[in-house]
Amino acid sequence: MSYRAPVPEMLFTLRHVAGLEAVDPEDAAAILTEAARIADGVIAPLNRVGDRHGTPFSEGRVTTPPGWRDAYGTFTAGGWNGLSADPDHGGQGLPKLVEAACTEMWNGANLAFGLCPLLTQGGIEALSAHGSDDLKARYLEKLVSGEWPATMNLTEPQAGSDLALLRTRAEPVGDGSYRITGAKIYITYGEHDLSDNIVHLVLARLKDAPAGTRGISLFLVPKVLPDGSANDLRCSGIEHKLGINASPTCSMAFGDGGGATGWLIGEENKGLACMFTMMNAARLNVGLQGVGIAEAATQKALAYARERRQGKALGAVEATSPIVAHPDVQRMLLTMKAYTAAARGICYLTAAALDAAQGPEGRAALDRASLLTPVAKAFSTDLANEITSLGVQVHGGMGFVEETGAAQLMRDARILGIYEGTNGIQAIDLTGRKLPLNGGATIRAQIAWMRRVAEGLLKSAEPAFGHGAARLRAGIEALDRATSHQLAALGSNRPEAALAGAAPYLRLFGLALGGACLAKAALAASAALKAGETDPAHAARIALARFYAENLLPAASGLEQAVLAGGGFTDDAAVALAG
Amino acid sequence: MSYRAPVPEMLFTLRHVAGLEAVDPEDAAAILTEAARIADGVIAPLNRVGDRHGTPFSEGRVTTPPGWRDAYGTFTAGGWNGLSADPDHGGQGLPKLVEAACTEMWNGANLAFGLCPLLTQGGIEALSAHGSDDLKARYLEKLVSGEWPATMNLTEPQAGSDLALLRTRAEPVGDGSYRITGAKIYITYGEHDLSDNIVHLVLARLKDAPAGTRGISLFLVPKVLPDGSANDLRCSGIEHKLGINASPTCSMAFGDGGGATGWLIGEENKGLACMFTMMNAARLNVGLQGVGIAEAATQKALAYARERRQGKALGAVEATSPIVAHPDVQRMLLTMKAYTAAARGICYLTAAALDAAQGPEGRAALDRASLLTPVAKAFSTDLANEITSLGVQVHGGMGFVEETGAAQLMRDARILGIYEGTNGIQAIDLTGRKLPLNGGATIRAQIAWMRRVAEGLLKSAEPAFGHGAARLRAGIEALDRATSHQLAALGSNRPEAALAGAAPYLRLFGLALGGACLAKAALAASAALKAGETDPAHAARIALARFYAENLLPAASGLEQAVLAGGGFTDDAAVALAG
Repeated sequence: MSYRAPVPEMLFTLRHVAGLEAVDPEDAAAILTEAARIADGVIAPLNRVGDRHGTPFSEGRVTTPPGWRDAYGTFTAGGWNGLSADPDHGGQGLPKLVEAACTEMWNGANLAFGLCPLLTQGGIEALSAHGSDDLKARYLEKLVSGEWPATMNLTEPQAGSDLALLRTRAEPVGDGSYRITGAKIYITYGEHDLSDNIVHLVLARLKDAPAGTRGISLFLVPKVLPDGSANDLRCSGIEHKLGINASPTCSMAFGDGGGATGWLIGEENKGLACMFTMMNAARLNVGLQGVGIAEAATQKALAYARERRQGKALGAVEATSPIVAHPDVQRMLLTMKAYTAAARGICYLTAAALDAAQGPEGRAALDRASLLTPVAKAFSTDLANEITSLGVQVHGGMGFVEETGAAQLMRDARILGIYEGTNGIQAIDLTGRKLPLNGGATIRAQIAWMRRVAEGLLKSAEPAFGHGAARLRAGIEALDRATSHQLAALGSNRPEAALAGAAPYLRLFGLALGGACLAKAALAASAALKAGETDPAHAARIALARFYAENLLPAASGLEQAVLAGGGFTDDAAVALAG
Repeated sequence: MSYRAPVPEMLFTLRHVAGLEAVDPEDAAAILTEAARIADGVIAPLNRVGDRHGTPFSEGRVTTPPGWRDAYGTFTAGGWNGLSADPDHGGQGLPKLVEAACTEMWNGANLAFGLCPLLTQGGIEALSAHGSDDLKARYLEKLVSGEWPATMNLTEPQAGSDLALLRTRAEPVGDGSYRITGAKIYITYGEHDLSDNIVHLVLARLKDAPAGTRGISLFLVPKVLPDGSANDLRCSGIEHKLGINASPTCSMAFGDGGGATGWLIGEENKGLACMFTMMNAARLNVGLQGVGIAEAATQKALAYARERRQGKALGAVEATSPIVAHPDVQRMLLTMKAYTAAARGICYLTAAALDAAQGPEGRAALDRASLLTPVAKAFSTDLANEITSLGVQVHGGMGFVEETGAAQLMRDARILGIYEGTNGIQAIDLTGRKLPLNGGATIRAQIAWMRRVAEGLLKSAEPAFGHGAARLRAGIEALDRATSHQLAALGSNRPEAALAGAAPYLRLFGLALGGACLAKAALAASAALKAGETDPAHAARIALARFYAENLLPAASGLEQAVLAGGGFTDDAAVALAG
């Protein structure tokens, strides 16, 4: 089956988990319904053809798959590219929370397609926050409309996670522009035929710049210069990848002919800050990519499990049962659905915090968004790998055959934990930079929020929650203890112990916060049922929250122990890896 | 880097974990060293070319990749195909335990290649145990030598996990042969050019046979008949798959021209028993495929992590450190190495039980092998998926690029949890059929064995084990309680609760047993160090066992809770999956 944007579930999560208030529920429903029409009807049908066709590369040109240019035109013409952007530059001025649901849709429908506007959005954020008025006037509207998509040119062969090693050079020309020279790799949508121009955002180093990341500057380097001539840059090749085959991953050569023309964004040597603006937006959006593809895999597996008949379930009347009736298959499907809902809740909460940062809450909300961003990125994308792999498993042998499409979702999802900062980097960011925010007050406030949800669950005494309240409480307390351990380790003379525990800590954080999100949805569903609503989705939300709490959340105790054991192996690792 | 068979680690595990006694250690070392020469030098170099080239299909013929026919010739000429087979039929008569190490090697070197002899081995087992003397005389020697490889023809479009739904028909001709008519799918190596003949083992249904699995018979159906003429069967197509591209997955048509000629193996309508003989051997071997590819992924990731420099590790002197110095990367590599060792230990223990069943221990050892086989298959292959995915992650962006080879390992591994009985089927087999063996005495004996290892660890009071003994003990007790729960649920009026907990139960079993295997190796290593040996591999074994116990084994408590919660969702699943 093809992907269908889960609009009712999205709306429920927006409202009851993330607390959407800025937009009237009916308006939000109208926007998401219209977005779903594009996602389901225009973008999703191109997912398989994109995978099979790929993006042939010849003589510096990249050809996107059949139908893609038209679909991109439909997408941008509808104003979907600039949903949260400033109306002064042609955006729709909608909350990021509403945009988050739409980002999930584009990527659930077609991850390779969704990547193009995702990168443009990063460009919009960076240019909006740091660009000069002149540069904004020339480029922002085109980026917001999507007429000119943006790219992020960070990675070089020797500089992946470590941007201090960048070698691409920039030299001022004297007229306000710079000459850019160097080679970049892994540039997503670095070259394509979806548009007539491409706006490259390029990290480079000025002559005599300080060493390391304090000597990096960000430049805007368009494929086509304002006078209509071609800039001195080209795509020198594309990668043969595991997945997202329709998204060209380009090697880019800047300045073969003496130097590509670019303009500084922000100040000289302050490129890292600009890049983080761009990348933080992208990190949340990559988390949303994870949610989207997890939802797609869950839908596909569920549809298959309802149709495929093998074996007779206990108590069944007919000779063969649909495999959805077998407890083991149910466990896989419930795991997929529950984890998808958990990741969605966390990503939407993060978007809501970004919106709240624009209001009276201000800085505290921005700090909360900073805290949640690495969790939204890494937890959601780790789960996307697990969920898409479970999707293959539910299909049995059919899952291993490419024709079915389940395998493509698994291949496509695999990049999500790697790009925009590997999930290991996210974990280090969470422990090393985000836990210490405001002396730990930001994380403590987030844990307090989770506790309030758990208390609500306890108080409700709803029998349908089973042992859910107790399990959620136990998960949150495990997180609380692990948090104390990480903060203490950071301040100790062995901070490597905190880094060693960073990955299980992030997982534990996501697991507990996801449980709180599901519980919040379940409480709202319970209230709705009590108020006389009869939508079966409400009972589903309660049952799913219970499944998550009783079957998935118990992993918290093992994760806590792994966090606490973190320091134990750093001294021994070289010994253990020898031999 | 290319795969290198880890001969010293294999020998150590054979001897100190699985208890190899039948073969002198020096002889075992000589055999494994020679096997490694073939695995590393002949088979491994064909892994990438196999993936890229695939097996083109045209007019009923399948062409294997360049070099494969020669390599298969080298492999069979060396006698490697029939290591454990009866010398009366040309086998080497070696213990299955030694063969297990070799099977791991072939598949670590090249999974798609290793599959061919793996299937032949299943055929050897079935024919040896159930074939008539006449049929054995005609076919067994050719199978043992590998001159004629065997296949397993089980699956049909409507009959995957549920063999009761088989429709392929067999009709006696009157001369002792049968006419076989029907279509099979997903037949690995169903057609190829590695050999001049292929021996198909085909499940089919006789006219008037009882319905369901009690009406299935097994037939030997050769590609080329004894008189040299072609049998009435053909390959009608091959699948486009996620991985193992060099292993042709064929659709087979039997009897288009009136009926393929076949001969019954065993008795009429007793095909299921014959198939289980074939499949049990295959299940252990699939577990060993998981170990092999996990080892290959671990070696590749470790080599990359030692070479790739990004970032400066805490306390490092140089400006950039190899990424193996970063705690988060260490955690990934240690997880890969420790899980690989755990899976190896479990698979070797299973092979040792099969050997012991031939000796004075007899039936009890055979039951132990039956108990361990689903764990060896499912735990090892679930881990293979996780380890090969971690391997991609350690490579960062390079991991997503096919050129690196890490992605191929992940793609190839993905079939292991699906074929020869999905891992869900293994879990149901373990809980439903194996736990009740001898009224639970077999599983209790296995748990007692684990407890003795844990007690040994406790008694040793070796400081290098850290909290390892306590963690191992906790894991074993969690398994013991979960076992009691599963046995009680099986005997209750809600046996579906046992099935619902089957998957986390199997994982818990594997996790605890794997911990015991690592602890056993660590104890032996500790003794060796005390005896004055200086091999750094000994300290590595101790540190690895500690890492496993402190960082991975704590997951046991969450798994136990999931087993206990199993019954909670079967009633609610339909509700939770609606909406």
